[in-house]
Amino acid sequence: MRVALAQIDTVVGDVWGNAGRAAKALDRALEGGADLVAFPELTITGYPPEDLLLRPSFIQENLGALNEFAGSVPEGVVVAVGFVDLDGDLYNGCAIITGGEVLYRYHKRYLPNYGVFDENRYFREGEGAPVLRLDGALVGVNVCEDMWYPGGPARDQALSGASVLLNVSASPYHRLKGHSRERMLGVRASDHGCYVLFCNLVGGQDELVFDGRSAAFDPEGRVIARAKQFEEDLLLVDLDAEEALVHRLHDPRPRKENPDRPPEVIEVPTAGHNPNGRTWGRTGGEPRREPALSEEGEVLSALCLGLGDYFRKNGFSRAVLGLSGGIDSSFAAAVAARALGPENVTGVLMPSRYTSELSNTDAAALANNLGIDTQVIPIGPAFDAYREMLEGAFEGLKEDVTEENIQSRIRGNILMALSNKFGWIVLSTGNKSEMSVGYSTLYGDTAGGFSVIRDVPKTLVYRICRHINEVEGREVIPESVLTKEPSAELREDQRDADSLPPYDVLDPILEAYIEEDKGVGEIVAAGFDEEDVRHAVKLVDAAEYKRRQAPTGIKVTARSFGRDRRMPITNRYRERQGEPRGERRDGRS
Amino acid sequence: MRVALAQIDTVVGDVWGNAGRAAKALDRALEGGADLVAFPELTITGYPPEDLLLRPSFIQENLGALNEFAGSVPEGVVVAVGFVDLDGDLYNGCAIITGGEVLYRYHKRYLPNYGVFDENRYFREGEGAPVLRLDGALVGVNVCEDMWYPGGPARDQALSGASVLLNVSASPYHRLKGHSRERMLGVRASDHGCYVLFCNLVGGQDELVFDGRSAAFDPEGRVIARAKQFEEDLLLVDLDAEEALVHRLHDPRPRKENPDRPPEVIEVPTAGHNPNGRTWGRTGGEPRREPALSEEGEVLSALCLGLGDYFRKNGFSRAVLGLSGGIDSSFAAAVAARALGPENVTGVLMPSRYTSELSNTDAAALANNLGIDTQVIPIGPAFDAYREMLEGAFEGLKEDVTEENIQSRIRGNILMALSNKFGWIVLSTGNKSEMSVGYSTLYGDTAGGFSVIRDVPKTLVYRICRHINEVEGREVIPESVLTKEPSAELREDQRDADSLPPYDVLDPILEAYIEEDKGVGEIVAAGFDEEDVRHAVKLVDAAEYKRRQAPTGIKVTARSFGRDRRMPITNRYRERQGEPRGERRDGRS
Repeated sequence: MRVALAQIDTVVGDVWGNAGRAAKALDRALEGGADLVAFPELTITGYPPEDLLLRPSFIQENLGALNEFAGSVPEGVVVAVGFVDLDGDLYNGCAIITGGEVLYRYHKRYLPNYGVFDENRYFREGEGAPVLRLDGALVGVNVCEDMWYPGGPARDQALSGASVLLNVSASPYHRLKGHSRERMLGVRASDHGCYVLFCNLVGGQDELVFDGRSAAFDPEGRVIARAKQFEEDLLLVDLDAEEALVHRLHDPRPRKENPDRPPEVIEVPTAGHNPNGRTWGRTGGEPRREPALSEEGEVLSALCLGLGDYFRKNGFSRAVLGLSGGIDSSFAAAVAARALGPENVTGVLMPSRYTSELSNTDAAALANNLGIDTQVIPIGPAFDAYREMLEGAFEGLKEDVTEENIQSRIRGNILMALSNKFGWIVLSTGNKSEMSVGYSTLYGDTAGGFSVIRDVPKTLVYRICRHINEVEGREVIPESVLTKEPSAELREDQRDADSLPPYDVLDPILEAYIEEDKGVGEIVAAGFDEEDVRHAVKLVDAAEYKRRQAPTGIKVTARSFGRDRRMPITNRYRERQGEPRGERRDGRS
Repeated sequence: MRVALAQIDTVVGDVWGNAGRAAKALDRALEGGADLVAFPELTITGYPPEDLLLRPSFIQENLGALNEFAGSVPEGVVVAVGFVDLDGDLYNGCAIITGGEVLYRYHKRYLPNYGVFDENRYFREGEGAPVLRLDGALVGVNVCEDMWYPGGPARDQALSGASVLLNVSASPYHRLKGHSRERMLGVRASDHGCYVLFCNLVGGQDELVFDGRSAAFDPEGRVIARAKQFEEDLLLVDLDAEEALVHRLHDPRPRKENPDRPPEVIEVPTAGHNPNGRTWGRTGGEPRREPALSEEGEVLSALCLGLGDYFRKNGFSRAVLGLSGGIDSSFAAAVAARALGPENVTGVLMPSRYTSELSNTDAAALANNLGIDTQVIPIGPAFDAYREMLEGAFEGLKEDVTEENIQSRIRGNILMALSNKFGWIVLSTGNKSEMSVGYSTLYGDTAGGFSVIRDVPKTLVYRICRHINEVEGREVIPESVLTKEPSAELREDQRDADSLPPYDVLDPILEAYIEEDKGVGEIVAAGFDEEDVRHAVKLVDAAEYKRRQAPTGIKVTARSFGRDRRMPITNRYRERQGEPRGERRDGRS
């Protein structure tokens, strides 16, 4: 049996367009001789369609688009494609199609409702564990989360005699997830004594990036084929159903239990007869197995795909961002130049009286290395005007963070003015460490349509910048940017270290608190200074209102801010061993 | 049996504080002679605690606080109080407490996961339908959503012989919901032949307001007692369990079915013996029945409570907002003056060359009527500075919305500067109609910590302003503000009507599209001009990125923007009968 895993990049809401994308990939799969072609979860609607699912007209058009696509599936070939089914209630469905007709509609049984997922909001859980009989071989089809539990439909399908388990997915990326996902799927394959085929979505959708990396596992749990990460791909694999049976008979673990639900066998007429003439059996060479990227490489690719798809899918072409000469804006600019092309990126230098000469030369060198346009707009005149206008209101008061924030907001306004005048999209450049502790100015450096690196911790920003220089074999990010001390340059001699613990101390504290939900006591017990921990935790809690108004950006960690972490703004929780809650307006706001 | 419904205002996260608030209300209930005292859903944690629930230290402190509170419950009195139970997994629990000990832990069975709710994200569904035997009478206790279905624990409890059903709730407000909720609860009472006691949360929590309005229904379904709306209250009701039995025997509908689950009867020792000496039976006079507010009155109260609690719970005291002389900022200022006291509100007039003299005098009159401070800061100098700074970049280009947005952003910056310098919180003043179609400037008039009227449609803004003048018997909102044509005054002779359909046409279209998920075809079929409908729908879809960066504000409609409506930003869905998707940057941005 030749299987094609069609890892395509769909667009949320674009039901007719997605049906067309699937039809094109189907053509290529047929040319490649595939008998069974799989598409990702919710191919027709895109994933996640969110509250579009509450709109009856949307559900109907999704069904219309599915039928249009079904019409393009020839006899002798079987297609599994994700769509939204309406059968008294909504289901996250997978249609089994052959000969122009939908033969069966599988309904996803395990609906994720944690992290970034809200599937209980929309869907009813399905029932059953159907297997398709394809010219003698039994294939169990299920959807994404169905495979993440040791029981459920996959187990039932295997116990009913399936030798192949096909899982159609929309599994979002975070760093190193691909590795643990492969480990889990390999264990499912060997536990069930089946081939496991994993067809994943690829592409960016607002804060999510789907990494592709579709794969096939043999009944011993080994990866026998792997598609590209972060790119569309069509992965062809030849399977021998008999091999699965041999493996199962030789596995010392007896599989004599009965499935929880009796098998429902779907007879697929004339399956396994691709009109291109290929039939069962190993007809190709060794399947392709793309190498897995390094951590720095995959985060960089995720950012580029997420940013690129945000632009492409929303019809934007050009980006503008402020270049301060610091590491964050340098990194964001490098990502933008890769994702959009340097000809589509404008960097704006907006020096003030506090900007060092080194910052200006670093920013210019970076722009030159990337090949992007620059503009220079000093902010002095507006800063003077604000001070004059506020003279009366501020009479007799000292300068403080107010004046720092004014400078940052002037820069935000200039970028937005360029955006409004030229239709460019403003990229904001704050990293996750800043976003966590609120070390940023609302409507200032946080302003923008997309926040490129908002989920990348500062220490990882450095690592990826070095990785860029390494793989490009030249100084893309100037060495001085990598080595000088971080500063916001909003007052004389300002340094991040005046307000925050060093980033190599701060980042692990933030990871423990934000990604792992550890308490202050636990983090201190892990070896961190109690004052640093309390300070960081207090800043994180107090910055919730700022994060809530920040532009969206790409999730790359196990828990990003956004759909993934839903914290109240009004929140008086402080661990009892802790000090009372301090003033919210701590530092820049 | 004397029952007290303790409608208290809890604070999310403040587990020890909430236990203390409950203990204080318990004291008052005991003084009032109550035998059974009910508190709202999740009293200990506040509602909704959101992702605090993923923090093990938080769950433990909630259990600690529950135990501390339990210690204050004397023998002879029974208390039902909401908390988070940990029993292998998390449950939305209701503790039954007497004599200092937790006697039983009920687990909510119906977990809402729609609209603003995410309970499947955190909780496991409970089982069972316990009834408490209180000195002979059987009382079924359940939690909020459990009562919103005709079956479920309430039915089982009634079929097991309960004569009283006690429902502890955190039911958020939207306009006119109180009425339909009472209708539903009355039908449950008469269907089951039981007294129904509804104890609701009161108070503001970020975008939600809980309206209180706790109530008691007799077995005929009549409201026999009603607590205040939008205020803390303690409602005492005397019940005669025998009356329920009489009603049930006389009801022509036989209740001979068996419950789905066998009853679990909890014997409550020495219940019904309040140490204050009162015992069973009707000891008081007629219970109190607060009148229900008008629609304008309840929305106004919801806004005041929501804003006031946001300030109080976050430790803020003073607010600042821009006064344009228009209806929206006038209304927002009136709400702020009521909620925070006029002495805590500063209005800032920020005239430009396009500001009419009438706007200035209207703004000043409004401030005078409300008794709030004002400052006047003309924006000319900053506007000139930006134009000078951008001269090079904009050379040869005409003025357009860019220059309009710059003016709006200067005003946002001035308000934020006052906020940073003095610790005042900026209130933004956009209404729901503007928010829907994106008729606003990001980081300009949308800037702020709280968006007071963001869920109030423009036509309702007018109605409530007239209502304020009516109930105050004087011109609070100047008549000229109510009658002049709306304008943003960002260019010569600008009027809202140049860009948008009249608000009495626009608002019903928006309600149909946003609150009712109607398609373009349906809305046109309801009698609206097709061009108006298409224009409005296009603007709503394109403004999603702006809404995502807007400050939080109070939900008052059936579907607000925020937790309630989760739409993708990247979204290519357009009804097929529709035109292709246009440019996103339509009008001000």
